[in-house]
Amino acid sequence: MLFLLRFHVHVKRTTNHICSKTKTLLFRSRYISKAAAKAQLDYDYDGPLMKTTVPGPRSQFIFMKQKNKNVGAVNFFCNYDDSRGNYLVDVDGNRMLDLYTQISSIPIGYNHPALLKLMANPNNLSTFVNRPALGILPPENFPDKITESLISVAPSGMTRVQTMACGSCSNENAFKSMFIWYRNKERGHNSPSEEDLSTCMINQAPGCPDLSILSFMGGFHGRTMGCLATTHSKIIHKLDVPSFDWPIAPFPRLQYPLEEFTRENAQEEARCLEEVEDLIVKWRQKGRPVAGIVIEPIQAEGGDNHASPDFFRKLRGIARKHGCAFHADEVQTGGGSTGKFWAHEHWGMEDPADIVSFSKKLLSGGYFYRDELQPYRIFNTWMGDPSKNLFLAEVLNVIRRENLLEEVARSGKALLDGLYDLQAQFPGLLSRARGQGTFCAVDVCDAATRDRILLQTRDKGVILGGCGESSIRFRPALIFRDYHVHLFLNIFSDVLAHNK
Amino acid sequence: MLFLLRFHVHVKRTTNHICSKTKTLLFRSRYISKAAAKAQLDYDYDGPLMKTTVPGPRSQFIFMKQKNKNVGAVNFFCNYDDSRGNYLVDVDGNRMLDLYTQISSIPIGYNHPALLKLMANPNNLSTFVNRPALGILPPENFPDKITESLISVAPSGMTRVQTMACGSCSNENAFKSMFIWYRNKERGHNSPSEEDLSTCMINQAPGCPDLSILSFMGGFHGRTMGCLATTHSKIIHKLDVPSFDWPIAPFPRLQYPLEEFTRENAQEEARCLEEVEDLIVKWRQKGRPVAGIVIEPIQAEGGDNHASPDFFRKLRGIARKHGCAFHADEVQTGGGSTGKFWAHEHWGMEDPADIVSFSKKLLSGGYFYRDELQPYRIFNTWMGDPSKNLFLAEVLNVIRRENLLEEVARSGKALLDGLYDLQAQFPGLLSRARGQGTFCAVDVCDAATRDRILLQTRDKGVILGGCGESSIRFRPALIFRDYHVHLFLNIFSDVLAHNK
Repeated sequence: MLFLLRFHVHVKRTTNHICSKTKTLLFRSRYISKAAAKAQLDYDYDGPLMKTTVPGPRSQFIFMKQKNKNVGAVNFFCNYDDSRGNYLVDVDGNRMLDLYTQISSIPIGYNHPALLKLMANPNNLSTFVNRPALGILPPENFPDKITESLISVAPSGMTRVQTMACGSCSNENAFKSMFIWYRNKERGHNSPSEEDLSTCMINQAPGCPDLSILSFMGGFHGRTMGCLATTHSKIIHKLDVPSFDWPIAPFPRLQYPLEEFTRENAQEEARCLEEVEDLIVKWRQKGRPVAGIVIEPIQAEGGDNHASPDFFRKLRGIARKHGCAFHADEVQTGGGSTGKFWAHEHWGMEDPADIVSFSKKLLSGGYFYRDELQPYRIFNTWMGDPSKNLFLAEVLNVIRRENLLEEVARSGKALLDGLYDLQAQFPGLLSRARGQGTFCAVDVCDAATRDRILLQTRDKGVILGGCGESSIRFRPALIFRDYHVHLFLNIFSDVLAHNK
Repeated sequence: MLFLLRFHVHVKRTTNHICSKTKTLLFRSRYISKAAAKAQLDYDYDGPLMKTTVPGPRSQFIFMKQKNKNVGAVNFFCNYDDSRGNYLVDVDGNRMLDLYTQISSIPIGYNHPALLKLMANPNNLSTFVNRPALGILPPENFPDKITESLISVAPSGMTRVQTMACGSCSNENAFKSMFIWYRNKERGHNSPSEEDLSTCMINQAPGCPDLSILSFMGGFHGRTMGCLATTHSKIIHKLDVPSFDWPIAPFPRLQYPLEEFTRENAQEEARCLEEVEDLIVKWRQKGRPVAGIVIEPIQAEGGDNHASPDFFRKLRGIARKHGCAFHADEVQTGGGSTGKFWAHEHWGMEDPADIVSFSKKLLSGGYFYRDELQPYRIFNTWMGDPSKNLFLAEVLNVIRRENLLEEVARSGKALLDGLYDLQAQFPGLLSRARGQGTFCAVDVCDAATRDRILLQTRDKGVILGGCGESSIRFRPALIFRDYHVHLFLNIFSDVLAHNK
């Protein structure tokens, strides 16, 4: 059996070995005891193994050779053949526990046996070699593959999905669906006027109407021009690019841990919701009615900002009251890392949204939509990639077979508990530990310290990501277990101790 | 040897057999004589084979089952396992000569042996299974694979390329590169002001400047919101979607054959160029300066509209004179089907453009750019897909090894000659035959007749595409040969005779 879990003594040995090197043994030893009886995945490595600092000499050599490529943002070069499970291996042979997973886009780790097996099946060959124009000439099995994959995880209240190639295209087309829906609603029928037809070809109203999408400060929905008009997380994304005059509401700035600041947080959320309603009214008066509201269940790029289920339920109500479509952007939160397949499931609603977009861990983009938002005029050449849906169907099988959502809830709790402990231990360094499932984050005192800690942690064999101004975000794969949490916490507390 | 070409008698037999059924034998027999001595690809089928009308009963059955999917635009369902070379096979076992190739996106036909062989190589496995975030963690061989593939076909004057996932993302990000370049040029340095930084986060100028892209009526550059503001080919693309107030110039409306209307066409092109300059001046005065001009070397979706090399050379000069970037959108024209790898090579310029975008036949998107347009701030999660570049490198090997560009020039000439003959024969039906390589088109008297002809031709075993108001476009793969031309012409003339 390929997917047998087996008990493994290496974990304990490895972590003990690391611990014995430093004086923080006592503090860290309780993580080890928690991890002692955990099962290990047989396709995973035992632990990090560092041969050089990162980037190592081989990575640096490859950097040097790149005269004609845009490699400014490259961290180092990777050996994906040797990467496995939770571990990314670089070209210098450094093996790192990966808690960032390619910006949160590797669902079940590297080279999962189930995916390799799928590649070995000759029946799947032609799906990789012949990429069809899905909108006009789909392969015979495509509808079934979509039913088996995406439709099987459709959000509550939705039975329809439109596939796309990436997250930005998904949001761009979701916005278009909302605009088209809104205009049809305004008209009361589907027949555009002569004036609509003649003006749209020259970018003018009423054919190209002055409608808007309401978004939130700190939100990230992609970097193509429609998406970018709703993205407000970093200056570098937006500077010098023309945009739309669309309303931007404040996103709640909560205090953590949430249970200690119930009243303050409720007030903050009420303030933001009030502002949302004000903006909707104001933009309607301006002649740029809000056709839709777009929001992430957890603002990810913007700094892992959470809001309560109550906030989202009320926001959904405001959208309905004002006749705006409601779009939950689950590109980063979707796919299981919050402990539920969709982060919006935590809101506990039967009718959570009109549109839910996805990408990343779902391996290609797309969006679910309620029946009213029929995307009859949504089209492009590829409209997705069936070879990615083939992988996704198998990823979902693995998630179900191995109860990975439960595992995520369990390891997420261990991770967050560990972060609480560390911020108590290093109050000058860490604050605002927060998270849902393994979708966790913690703030560092300033950006420079955060960046230094990220590099030092990497040199000790753990890859993390930054977000917001000075946060660290955790985005492990769904196969991240308790014992990986403890491996990480041991290394991280070492690094923090050095930075105290 | 996998790629041996061999002589094949089936072609002649098949076409003779078809011919003998109709009275147009005499007319068509001269095509057959031309085709007689041609070599046939051993991985190709001998000819079309129709078992049912299209969509056949099995396709219709699958249609019926689709309650929850957006299948409005689907033509029929396909069997990609059995499709081969120039032939697409549907789920009813109908085998059709494909002159549309998934909206011009299949470079060397279906299931090419070279691509199947690549899939069988276990060294390539991990490239398919582990999709990286290319901008930060590329695989070791990625730079070499890009050099071997994209850089090896870099347009004149360009040595840099940015990969992307699809054509729309490529154009969106190319536009952003032009805006950033233009603003840096305006500032005279790379340091934005405090006002730039504070305004950009709320979508306001000067941080989000009022810059524009000049595009052409009839142009198509994609359907995401930035691209869509430069797309003016069909109402259905644009209606109900907010847009930018950007200038739109007329594209020359040439008379064909070009050599017979030299003077009239030169006048028409001069008129359009004058309008371009007027618009640039007018939009500068409006406070929305033109940062870039985007144009297709041949307007494809808009109806296969051509312009002369002289027009493009002068347009390039106008862009330079007014300090606008010049962007050649080769998403549909790039990849060899005009008889050169890039359609802009027909302009004969050493410095044809500042940006050349691509997708479709190049299997994933991206754009080449001149050094001045460094895309330092262009980024997203995937930034392309290395598994597609793996295929592309092999596609380029096949193109070189089999001299496919020469073959395209040869079969394109046969195709255009055939269309000239047919429009002489059916003057009430066809007009304005035009083309470069196999990138050909012909106008039909009206849209309804065009659509009927497309369906009838399909039922006889040839897939064609429409474009513009009432044009038929030809987009065969690069392995389309003389004898396929004659197969097609025989069938097409039958259908035309029925519609006379």
